[in-house]
Parts: sequence; structure tokens; C-alpha cells
Amino acid sequence: MSRTIAILTGGGDCPGLNAVIRGVVRSAILERKWRVIGIEDGFDGLVGEPRWRELTLDSVRGILPRGGTILGTSNRGNPLAYPVEENGETRLVDLSSEVVENFKRLGAEALIAVGGDGTLKIALALQEKGMPMVGIPKTIDNDLRGTDVTFGYNTAVGIVTEALDRLHSTAESHHRVMVVEVMGRDAGWIALESGIAGSADVILIPEIPFDLNSVCDAIQLRKSRGSKFSIVVAAEGAFPAEGQKVVQVTEAENRGVERLGGIAAYVADEITRRIQIETRVVVLGHVQRGGTPSPFDRILGSRFGVKAVDLIEKDRYGRMVSLQGRLICDVDIVDAVDSLNRVDPDSGLVKSAEALGITLGRPILR
Amino acid sequence: MSRTIAILTGGGDCPGLNAVIRGVVRSAILERKWRVIGIEDGFDGLVGEPRWRELTLDSVRGILPRGGTILGTSNRGNPLAYPVEENGETRLVDLSSEVVENFKRLGAEALIAVGGDGTLKIALALQEKGMPMVGIPKTIDNDLRGTDVTFGYNTAVGIVTEALDRLHSTAESHHRVMVVEVMGRDAGWIALESGIAGSADVILIPEIPFDLNSVCDAIQLRKSRGSKFSIVVAAEGAFPAEGQKVVQVTEAENRGVERLGGIAAYVADEITRRIQIETRVVVLGHVQRGGTPSPFDRILGSRFGVKAVDLIEKDRYGRMVSLQGRLICDVDIVDAVDSLNRVDPDSGLVKSAEALGITLGRPILR
Amino acid sequence: MSRTIAILTGGGDCPGLNAVIRGVVRSAILERKWRVIGIEDGFDGLVGEPRWRELTLDSVRGILPRGGTILGTSNRGNPLAYPVEENGETRLVDLSSEVVENFKRLGAEALIAVGGDGTLKIALALQEKGMPMVGIPKTIDNDLRGTDVTFGYNTAVGIVTEALDRLHSTAESHHRVMVVEVMGRDAGWIALESGIAGSADVILIPEIPFDLNSVCDAIQLRKSRGSKFSIVVAAEGAFPAEGQKVVQVTEAENRGVERLGGIAAYVADEITRRIQIETRVVVLGHVQRGGTPSPFDRILGSRFGVKAVDLIEKDRYGRMVSLQGRLICDVDIVDAVDSLNRVDPDSGLVKSAEALGITLGRPILR
Amino acid sequence: MSRTIAILTGGGDCPGLNAVIRGVVRSAILERKWRVIGIEDGFDGLVGEPRWRELTLDSVRGILPRGGTILGTSNRGNPLAYPVEENGETRLVDLSSEVVENFKRLGAEALIAVGGDGTLKIALALQEKGMPMVGIPKTIDNDLRGTDVTFGYNTAVGIVTEALDRLHSTAESHHRVMVVEVMGRDAGWIALESGIAGSADVILIPEIPFDLNSVCDAIQLRKSRGSKFSIVVAAEGAFPAEGQKVVQVTEAENRGVERLGGIAAYVADEITRRIQIETRVVVLGHVQRGGTPSPFDRILGSRFGVKAVDLIEKDRYGRMVSLQGRLICDVDIVDAVDSLNRVDPDSGLVKSAEALGITLGRPILR
Repeated sequence: MSRTIAILTGGGDCPGLNAVIRGVVRSAILERKWRVIGIEDGFDGLVGEPRWRELTLDSVRGILPRGGTILGTSNRGNPLAYPVEENGETRLVDLSSEVVENFKRLGAEALIAVGGDGTLKIALALQEKGMPMVGIPKTIDNDLRGTDVTFGYNTAVGIVTEALDRLHSTAESHHRVMVVEVMGRDAGWIALESGIAGSADVILIPEIPFDLNSVCDAIQLRKSRGSKFSIVVAAEGAFPAEGQKVVQVTEAENRGVERLGGIAAYVADEITRRIQIETRVVVLGHVQRGGTPSPFDRILGSRFGVKAVDLIEKDRYGRMVSLQGRLICDVDIVDAVDSLNRVDPDSGLVKSAEALGITLGRPILR
Repeated sequence: MSRTIAILTGGGDCPGLNAVIRGVVRSAILERKWRVIGIEDGFDGLVGEPRWRELTLDSVRGILPRGGTILGTSNRGNPLAYPVEENGETRLVDLSSEVVENFKRLGAEALIAVGGDGTLKIALALQEKGMPMVGIPKTIDNDLRGTDVTFGYNTAVGIVTEALDRLHSTAESHHRVMVVEVMGRDAGWIALESGIAGSADVILIPEIPFDLNSVCDAIQLRKSRGSKFSIVVAAEGAFPAEGQKVVQVTEAENRGVERLGGIAAYVADEITRRIQIETRVVVLGHVQRGGTPSPFDRILGSRFGVKAVDLIEKDRYGRMVSLQGRLICDVDIVDAVDSLNRVDPDSGLVKSAEALGITLGRPILR
Repeated sequence: MSRTIAILTGGGDCPGLNAVIRGVVRSAILERKWRVIGIEDGFDGLVGEPRWRELTLDSVRGILPRGGTILGTSNRGNPLAYPVEENGETRLVDLSSEVVENFKRLGAEALIAVGGDGTLKIALALQEKGMPMVGIPKTIDNDLRGTDVTFGYNTAVGIVTEALDRLHSTAESHHRVMVVEVMGRDAGWIALESGIAGSADVILIPEIPFDLNSVCDAIQLRKSRGSKFSIVVAAEGAFPAEGQKVVQVTEAENRGVERLGGIAAYVADEITRRIQIETRVVVLGHVQRGGTPSPFDRILGSRFGVKAVDLIEKDRYGRMVSLQGRLICDVDIVDAVDSLNRVDPDSGLVKSAEALGITLGRPILR
Repeated sequence: MSRTIAILTGGGDCPGLNAVIRGVVRSAILERKWRVIGIEDGFDGLVGEPRWRELTLDSVRGILPRGGTILGTSNRGNPLAYPVEENGETRLVDLSSEVVENFKRLGAEALIAVGGDGTLKIALALQEKGMPMVGIPKTIDNDLRGTDVTFGYNTAVGIVTEALDRLHSTAESHHRVMVVEVMGRDAGWIALESGIAGSADVILIPEIPFDLNSVCDAIQLRKSRGSKFSIVVAAEGAFPAEGQKVVQVTEAENRGVERLGGIAAYVADEITRRIQIETRVVVLGHVQRGGTPSPFDRILGSRFGVKAVDLIEKDRYGRMVSLQGRLICDVDIVDAVDSLNRVDPDSGLVKSAEALGITLGRPILR
């Protein structure tokens, strides 16, 4: 029996979104002769006059190697608390009934929502209002529970590692300390894995509040061993341990941290102040999100798309696709959105980093 | 207590070998102040006058992003059946006693052997003769049991996927079928994963003997849908199903399959003969092994190195390091070398590929 | 006054073709409000029922970074000698009148033909029959006169250099001689420039028939200096100097040289035979043509497109755009197609290569 | 007759420096059996106790694909005005006699100085004091006269273009304006060429003071044509035309422009303020200098090295190697350092950019 399904992509863009869309479209059309509707700009596309287009095999031709999402993503945000301007003021309005109504008029039976924590929470709420939903997790920072990892993260680690490779030659030629700020507000996965892969000397992550004495000691120990440069990788959410000077990021928050290099600039300034070594700051920013997805992310995105269609076929709504080991499974959306996937400071990965001689800025007991 | 350990790399080169060596050296020296000896050219370096050098922090500086192995790898082969020329004839001689003797003279307590099936079997035999051994698995084809995956494979999939991306534009511009031969004599992992990631239309692997009718049907079905080109990825060990013409590879075997494009040339010729479509053959060959390792392979290689040193510290000899899920564990070497890790034709990965519309050449029942 | 112009791409695909198309479309529409027609599959699109489509700003959106040509290229060939099947036989028929007639019916004033030697000769012939033509040179081998260089070549050199970087690590780890066959039937530019950039030890080009003694001496000299491996880069059109064994490529010609590795296999076999060193052959083949164009090729292609529209505006037909120094100029098509741009064996580039210690296989006088 | 020569690298690091060093060493040793001395850390290595090492064939093995300089570069600066601390104050002292004296003690006949404007001016001054000098130009910004282009620039354009490719997908998915700040204090070459290659919509360079009305108009025109995103590339030295608000970069200058994104942040803020479009800032910073050199830069660096040795052989001191067209020539150092190579706002390259629909921010006459 032919069915019609819909898909949207929400939140920040992420390499592999197009692989998901292509996976949904190809498996729905080729295997089942279903019809697929693509909703534009996330849940925004279901507010006001619906914005959507039919997705055919032609629509998804050649998109597997491309970053971003052909469907666009939401910029205005949550339909449950939607910003509406009235008399010069902005109020937050619950437009979920309008969204459900608009969705029904499209004639689709189910909606695949691809997105992070925020998008999945909206999906849950709409599911309760009667919209049959399937979730696909998306987080470039790898901070979402409910799946071992999701697409985009692997690509980001690749981009950061390549940048670290590049920065090594300039750091070495100039005997400098390079402080590199990478994505990761709540979880330090990108900093940790690309730091190990990119031969960082110091890695600072939100899960381990750092001690600047420990950072400076590491740099000076390297110097005493003949290495005149060091590479420090800092997750944007890293912060100093209690009792030390707190970073002032008010201006940074106003203007976007990627603009100011909040934590990296702070760390660099402190290193120069404390041990008089020349430092340079690099804030990688948006380049970490872009470009062609890695093979891993293409495969994972494609398989997630295929699996979401499977779940719809079996009327398993309210579920989210998930990678566990090498298997694609599904979990309750509700179990995925309630807490964060953070680096365990006692994990094998962290211990491996330390065994390799990398300093994670753990406080020194003196 | 300071100890001396040794390491060698055997078999075909593989991106990530230098990460292993660096991981061993850094964790042995920085964490434990041990001494590390690097044996050159695999087990060959323990035959005749031993060839080795001390590995210091300086020796491994800057090697993480580099392909190959700074220690070289064996070319002459198995010390248990070593080719010795005498009176114009080549005899195979068991030199294991000489190897054990030479090793003892180095003053090392244990040897870390990094290698594939062949190297690990030699390690087992030498372990029985009293050389304390720890194994680190290496296989670019991913055909080794005892570990979920090992370093090098991820890099190879990346290189093949990039090549497939490139070949797409030329195939599309010329309305051609490109047949691309990739590594994988016994297992089709590289073909399968890079084929999915690189938008292949047909993937041929040793685990699923292929039916040329099925291959040709897939190409013609695509054509009827408006796609004038197709990409076929064939593992070098793929072969046609029973009852069909068998490939004659005698000459190819003499000259190296990479030279002739054994299976790819056969498939291309058959497609042209059967459905009169222009084909081109590309044999990727040795480029698949080279170049900078991917972040995944750098991290995995580093962690394997760290773990091998841990095993020596605990005197756990005869063990091989292993990735299981996201954990680094260890298994008995003997359990790793007795059978191959091959693609399961009924696995989720294969079914995902088929759901995406990829043909694996399964025989058509008519 | 609004005008209508047409464009087609002929011959082998080449990175930068889409940059040309985009440059033509954008400068014609944005600057002049002209209309642009894209003819499909080279001159084939003007044989029989014309195949064309309107090219708008939308049609060329996002194509700058993509390899290949969105217009397709010819596969059947020359309309002046077009293969027509009749009664089971293939005759070559002059269809130029049909082509001119078809073109007139499109309502375009002029045609921009992007292609190599073959395409430009056809353009010249059609120009004489009354079709106003502007040529844009295309040759990935850089063997066309009339322009310092054209797009695609720079990208190909980049791809080959990256492959040589990769092969270094495997050659070094295994103490092997790698013989790498690259594009260049008549001219050795790709072999020469990528060989210098990729640290080749021996470079064989069609312009300098090679002496195998000289090649073997170079490899042995390296060995005596402690370098146990060597990299030989051979243009596919390289051949041994008079008096030495001639390569038999009959079968290779039938099946495509990329399939057999004609000259590379010959050279590798001879090296092994003469000095008993292990060799491996890699034939890079079609990957050299594909993938995203380099910045240089994107800029050059774009500027060529802009210039071609300028020429049409000034009714300067029969001209070909050309790069001279850093300037984009134009020359008579007829001056570009009468001879080849080959490497001068006495040029500064060749001498630089030799000063760096690279052997070009010049015969040794003994 | 065997001679001894020396080489140093000064100023900011640049991809291709190692190619130069390797070219000098290989052609000096292999062709002429000379001896080569490498001075460490630029002219700093000749201040106080000389820091140098012998450069052999082994020293330069494998360095061609590596960024940075194996010799290090100067951090303290000009020996003609060297910062010396005394009684807590820093005075600038002329140490040129010490440098000349130290150089003589090394036993080298001539010094090859690789560097930009600053390094070459020092070389000139030392030449007048009796040190035989040959110059090799280095500028990643391409702002040096006396040579068509030099190594490093081509690599930087490649890195920026790749970043722009990546940012396209995120800009497009989010309907944003991305403002990307790239190198170029005095000359806009990198912004201009990578902007054309990377499909920028607006390019701001120091040679054309920009009008923000013109920038905002371009973005709105694109929007009216259906392109909801735009990419703005700004050279770090770009600045607004007279009469408009001047950027306050006092803090930026204190902390390094790469940290604050001086001009890019200003432009982004103004766009948001004037036309209420969401903007994001990316400051590429030091990644532009690093990593493996492009083939062009490897070849050019190698040839420059070979040529410098030629000049010494002919005792042509006070000369600088230079690329003119495809030829490697030499010019007087004095002619290279007296003025900058800036983009001509009326050049063909700029006009091509404008013909492609790119806005350079030229003031609008209203």
C-alpha cells in the first residue's frame, strides 16, 4: 500500500544531513514506492503557509557528498514558544496546534524529524498532540545520549585534526604556543579526539575544569625537553577550576563566541602572562560544520534514513534511530533527550590521552 | 623498575603503524621511564645480524600524521620457513631458534609484534619458544577476527570514497560505466563501506558470488530511470557465481593483480559484451595503503600502542590488543588468527546497502 | 540589445568545465541580460533532434566546485565524419550541414565550443560553413598550443602529487620501486611537474625517449646512498630510446592503456629483470580527471567564460580565448590547433628537475 | 672546487620554505659537491653564539611535502635594530658587525636569505657590510614586487577556497551571511583569488575602500533573486571608504587581529544593523599558513633553491631569484623591496570578478 511520509531537518547544520534525506527518499521510493515530502527550514516550514516540496529520486541525486541540508533548517525556532512580534514587542506563542493542523493538510502519515536535543523535544510534544513522529539524532558535538555517536561528529573531528596538522608547522617554525578553540559547549569530545589525533600537548574540556598551573607546567616541561612549541586545544565550553580567575565572556556572548575566542583568548593571555611565552589564538568556528561528510558520516546518515523508514512501516512512532556498536537500533525519543553524553574523566579514552603525555589540565596538588 | 621492551612491524604497510610505534614509545618512556628498541624490517631484523635502533621521544616526533612505518616491514618473510638459497636452489628453513637467540641478546624483556594474520602466527610460535610476545592486529582489509576493526581500514575507506567521488563526475559527463577495483581478497569490507559512502550502484564482494545478469539488469534499470552512468565497485577477491564463466587470472597472478585489474577488467568486458555500454576500468592499487592516517586510525593506533605497554607491565604475554565497542581490551592471540572476519550477506549493513538501491550482484532466480 | 548565445563542451571531461559554463552564463545574464542555451553532449547534441536546455542563473548555482560538465560531452564524435550504421556496416558521414541547420533553428547567434584539439578543429570547419564560433581551449595534458596553460591541468597535477605522497610511505616501508603511470600521451607535463612536486626519483616523458640503463643506474645510485626505495613516474606516452626492446601494446590499445599499465608495467618488469629489485605498478587512470577543480582552474575557467562572452559582444568570431602570462587574451583558433605544446628537453624546468637529482632517463654514453 | 654556502629563513612561516631548503641542499651537494650550512631561527641564529647545523642529503629527506621550515625562523627580529634589555629597559642596538663576524667564522662564502620585505632589507644592509648575499622572496600575501608570485601564496589560496566551500553549505542551510576574514594587510590577492574560486558574493580588499551601502545592496539583490545566503570575504586590511564610520581596532591591535576579527566583525555588525540579516564571522587566521604546500609551491620553491645556488656559482651577489612568466630569473634585491605588489582595481582580474557578479564594494554614486 502506498503511503506518504514527510521529513524535516532542524537545528544547526551538520555534515550527513543530506545522506539522511537521501536514505529516506531512496528506501521509501525504491523499496516501497512511497511518496516523500520535504518540509523546508525545520519546523518553521509548518508555521503559517506550509513550505514544502516533493522529494523524488532526482531531488536527492548527487547530494550524498554535500554538506548542509537541501531542506534548510529553522532559524526562528521552537513552534511551542514561537517569537511573534506584536505592537513592537516579541511574545512567545505556542503554535503547536497550527503546526499539527498544517501537517495534517499535507496528507502525510508520519514525520521524520532530524535534529538535536531541541528538535527532538519539539517532536515529542507534537507526538503527544497526535503527530506520528520518528526521530533521527543530530549533534555535531556528540553530546546526545541514546546513540553511541551520530553523523557529523566524525567529519568535525577530521576537520579539526587537519587544522591541527597545519598549525603544527607554524607553531614549530615560530616556537609558539598555539591555542585552538573548537566546538563543544557542554561536552569535550571534539577537543579530546581531535587533540589526540592532532598531537596536541594540552586538551581542555568542559568535563575537567582546568588548572592553569598544570597547563603552564606542561608547556615548560616540553620546553625543557627541547620542544620549543606547544599546541593547546580548548573546547569552547572549557573553564578554569574553582578558585581561579573566572572568564568574562559577556561581550563574547553578545557577539558570538566564535568571534572573540572566549576561552582560547583567556588561556593564551594567561600563558603569556605567567610564563612569558609567545602565544597565538585560532578559533576554528563555522568551518567545523561544513563541507563534504566523511565516509563514516555518509554511511551512518544513510543507514539512519533507511531505519527511520523501517520504523514508519512498522508504525513504531515516538522512537529514535540509534547506533549501538555496529548495529542500527531504535530507542524511545524520551530516553535520548533527558541528559547529555559527556566525556567521563576516568574513561579509557582520557587515560590513553594521558598515557601519551597529553595534559588535560587536571589541578595539581601542591 | 626500568625495563627494556622491543617492537617490530610486519606484513603490508598500513596507515596508523607510526601511531602505534609512537604510542608504545611515549607511554613506555613518559609514564614508566622504560627503554624501547625498534627492530627493523619485521622479523627479518632478527635474522642474521640483528638490525635495530633505540627509539627515543625524538625518534617518534612528528610521525603521527605519517603513513607507512618508520621501522620498515619484512620482505623476505616467515622466519619459521625462511627462504635460503643454496646451490642455486631456494630451501625453506626454520630459523626460529636464531630469532629467539638474537632477541635475547638485545636485552629486551618482551616484544610487541604489530602485524596481520601471518605476523601474529609467527608471534604465537615464538611465544611457545620462550619469547614473551604481545600482539597488535593490523589489517587494512578488516578481515581479522578478535577486534571490531583495526587501524588503516578507516583510512583506506576514505581514500576509496574520495576516488569514487572523483570518478562520478567523469562517469556522468561521459555516460559511462566505471568499474573500480579495490582491496579485499577475502573480505569485501572496503568495497562495501566505500561503495555505500561513494554512491556506488553495484558492489561486488567475495562473500556474495555475483551474477552478471543481475549486474547488467541494475545498470539498465538505472538507464531507464534517466541515469546514463553507473559506478561498479569490485573487491579484488570478488568472483562470479557458479555456472558462469570463470575468470582466467593466470597472467594476472604472475604480474600482480593490481597491474591487470583482474576482476574489474573481466566485469567491464562482460558488461560491454552483454549490454553494449561503454565501460572504463580503474584499479586503485597501492594508493589505498598510503598517506596520512585518518583521525580514527591515529587514535586507535595510539591507544593500541598504549595498551600493549600496559599488557607488558602486567606480564600478560600471548595476548593481542583489541577494540570492542569503544573499549580497548585484550584477547588471546590464538583466538584472533584462526578464522577470517568476513561480511555477513544477511547483516544490517548489507541490507541497508540494498535498501538504498545498491545491487550486490545476488543471483536472479528466473 | 538582448542576444541569445549557445555553449557546448566536447572531448574528455576536465575539472573546470563547469567554471567555464558558469562564467559564460553569469556574465551573459548579469552583465548583459542575454539568453544562454546549453547544448548537451558536445556536437552530438546538434545531430538528429537537437538536445539542449536553457541555462539560467539557477542552472549554474553551486557548480563551481564540481568536476565534470553539467552539459555532458560527446561520445560518438566528429559530425564531419559521423559514424552511421547501415546494413550492419558503419560508414563515416559528413553531417556538418545538419549541424549548422539545427543550430540556426535554436535561434542562437553564436556558439562557444569548449574542447581540445578535436573539438576546436570541428569548430573551425563549422565556422567556415557560417556558424559564428568562439573557442575555449581544454586539455588536461597541457599539450595544446595557443595558451600558456588551460584549466584541468593544475588539478590533475594536484591529484597525481597527492598520490605520489601516498605511495612514498608504502615504497619506503617495503623498500620497493613504485612505477606510477600518469596521463600524457604526447606531452609529459603532468609527469614532469607532479614528479618534481611529488619527490620522484625518475621521470619518463614522451619528449625524452628513455634508456633503461640510465633508469636502473639511478635506482642503484640511490640504494648505494641508503635510500632503499625509489619512485618512477612515467607518462603513458613515454617510450624507450631506439635500439632497446620495443613495448608491445597491441592488447593494451584494444582494452585501454589504463587497464594494462602499458609502459609502467614494461618499465617495472625490466627493472626487476635487470637489477633484481622488487617493483610495483600503479596506473592512476581516470581519477586524474575527476573531482573538484583547484582554485587556479576555477579562476581560469571562470575568466575564460567571461572572455568568450566579451568576444561575442565584439563579434570576434573564429577566435579562441587564451592565457598569456597573467592576462586573458584571444588568438585565432587556427593558430592553436596546428601543433602540440610539448616539454622542451632543454628548458629550465627540465634542468631544474635534473639539478634536484631527478633522472629523466637520458641515454648514457658509454 | 668545493665551496661552503649557508642558508637561513626569516619572517613568518610559509608553505614551500622546506622545498627551497631542499632545492638548495640537493643541487649544491648532488651537482657540485658543495657543503651547506643551515642557520637556525633566521638572523637570530647569527646573534650571540651562532646556532647552525650542517645540512646533508639526509637532513632534507622527506621535507618537500611539509609546511613550515626545518630551520626555524626569527622571533626577535632585525639585527640592525635588535632589542636588548638593559636595566629593565629595551634599547634597539645595531648588531650587524657581530652578525658579519659570526658569519665569517662559519667559513661559508655566501648566504642565501629566504624572506619577505624585512628579511631582504636586512640582507641588503649586510651585503653592503661585506656579506655576499643571495635573496629568495617569500610572501604569503603576494605583496612583494620583483617576482610574478612566490611560494606559499598558492597554498594559502587553496586553504581559503576549501574553507569557503565548507562555509557555503552552512550559510545556505541557515540563510545566513558569512563574513570571512583572510590574510592580506596591504594587498588583497588572497581575498580576491580565493573569493573568485570559492564563489564569494562580496570581496573586500585594501586596494578598494568599501562602501557598506554597496555591500548591503548586493546582499539584498541576491535575496530578491532567491539566494537567501551570501558569502563576504574580507582581507584583514580592508577598510571602509572615507566618510563612513572608521573601525576601532585599538584592542584588536593589542591582542592580534586574528583574535578579534577586526574588519570582519565590523562588517558583520554593520550588515545586521542596516538590513537585519543574520551574520556570522569566521577568522581563518593561522591555518592559512600551515600544512603541506601545493604542487605549484613545491615546484617554485625547489626551483628558487636551485637558482640561488646557480647565482652563487656565478658570484652574482645582491641578486634575488624571481619568477617571470614561466621562467626563473634574477633581479636586484634593491628593486624588489622598494614598493608593494598590490591589486590594480582596473585590472582584468578585478573586472572578471565583477563580470561574474561579485561585488567589490566600490562606492555607489547616488
